[in-house]
Amino acid sequence: MKEVRILEIKQSVFADNDRQAEDLRKELKEKGVFLLNLMSAPGSGKTTTLMRTIEALKDTLKIGVMEADIDSDVDAKTISESGAKVIQLHTGGMCHLDAQMTRQGLEGLDTGDVELAILENVGNLVCPAEFDTGASKNAMILSVPEGDDKPLKYPLMFSVCDVVLINKIDVLPYFDFDMEKCREHIRMRNPDAKIIPICARTGEGIEEWTEWLKKEVKESRLQAAE
Amino acid sequence: MKEVRILEIKQSVFADNDRQAEDLRKELKEKGVFLLNLMSAPGSGKTTTLMRTIEALKDTLKIGVMEADIDSDVDAKTISESGAKVIQLHTGGMCHLDAQMTRQGLEGLDTGDVELAILENVGNLVCPAEFDTGASKNAMILSVPEGDDKPLKYPLMFSVCDVVLINKIDVLPYFDFDMEKCREHIRMRNPDAKIIPICARTGEGIEEWTEWLKKEVKESRLQAAE
Repeated sequence: MKEVRILEIKQSVFADNDRQAEDLRKELKEKGVFLLNLMSAPGSGKTTTLMRTIEALKDTLKIGVMEADIDSDVDAKTISESGAKVIQLHTGGMCHLDAQMTRQGLEGLDTGDVELAILENVGNLVCPAEFDTGASKNAMILSVPEGDDKPLKYPLMFSVCDVVLINKIDVLPYFDFDMEKCREHIRMRNPDAKIIPICARTGEGIEEWTEWLKKEVKESRLQAAE
Repeated sequence: MKEVRILEIKQSVFADNDRQAEDLRKELKEKGVFLLNLMSAPGSGKTTTLMRTIEALKDTLKIGVMEADIDSDVDAKTISESGAKVIQLHTGGMCHLDAQMTRQGLEGLDTGDVELAILENVGNLVCPAEFDTGASKNAMILSVPEGDDKPLKYPLMFSVCDVVLINKIDVLPYFDFDMEKCREHIRMRNPDAKIIPICARTGEGIEEWTEWLKKEVKESRLQAAE
């Protein structure tokens, strides 16, 4: 595996994260960079989903990935195999990224030639939902083994996401997971969320997801060019 | 399902959590209450494991359970079916419990007749590891679908735990999970951690876990009586 660059990002000193996030979002739009914030619990399959996403979109879009972790660089090393530009962000024990930390990451990544920047946030269903990173869109992954009741227990995460990917549908027969109940629970928290069942391992559902993402990136770039 | 009591616990104002935790641990020991802090990522099977644990120990020990969640009371309702004393703690959005919040929970539960108090912490591999709750012992659950690399990414959680239960071993054939590699990764973080593979759904491995827990509770009560 390739060596990857590791950036130690510092906890931000700005009290007003919401304004910082709005500023960053506006700047990115002007530069034509679409930022996707990808969140989930530990082990839901963020990195495997990212590998599939890059595979599907790399001929259409210039992609850059920021891998945020408390420690280790295993995910960034995996992503580097895809050929996408990647940087590992170490959060120094922090359980989430805010807008200023995301800005540090984007600077480290160097977005000059990037059209789609993806932030793989820290694996955590609580804290990352509380901090607007300045992303154009928020996506989250809920995996089948975690259970269909998660929207009841982690309401904010489901409320702030534009898309919920339900991953690992290949193991549905082995778990007590009710897809219809899960959709209902998600809609209770967020009636507008797009819900896409996928299997990152086999590739099932990935096309619907990457088509959605491609459309969002194009629309955002068109709006910025107007 | 029974109605359960819900307690809204408040964020604590104490800067020195470590001292608060030491004080609580000492008090509990004097009262003969053993406090187990059970942690894991969302959906690892904490509640199902607890149901099995209560089933195995309820004739030997008086058990009380505190279910901490951001929202909902689904877990407390499930636990109430076991016959154990249970209280739901709502953390008001907080991603962890500290010693003072745990103290509020224990007061709400009323530990007068409790020998083994179990705190089901918020589902999160990051923040709960940073706050000593005052527990006699820390346990965590890592489930097979989450992957064997989790100790590399969430080092502190694995360092602070006395026991790691590896749950959902019944689905090992469907996941790319290497048990030996997982044990190695855990030992890197914590050479003394006891590692017990279990399947809360089928009951496999539960006896080893509950025998360990029973022994710890007895030893702690004997030390306190001396």
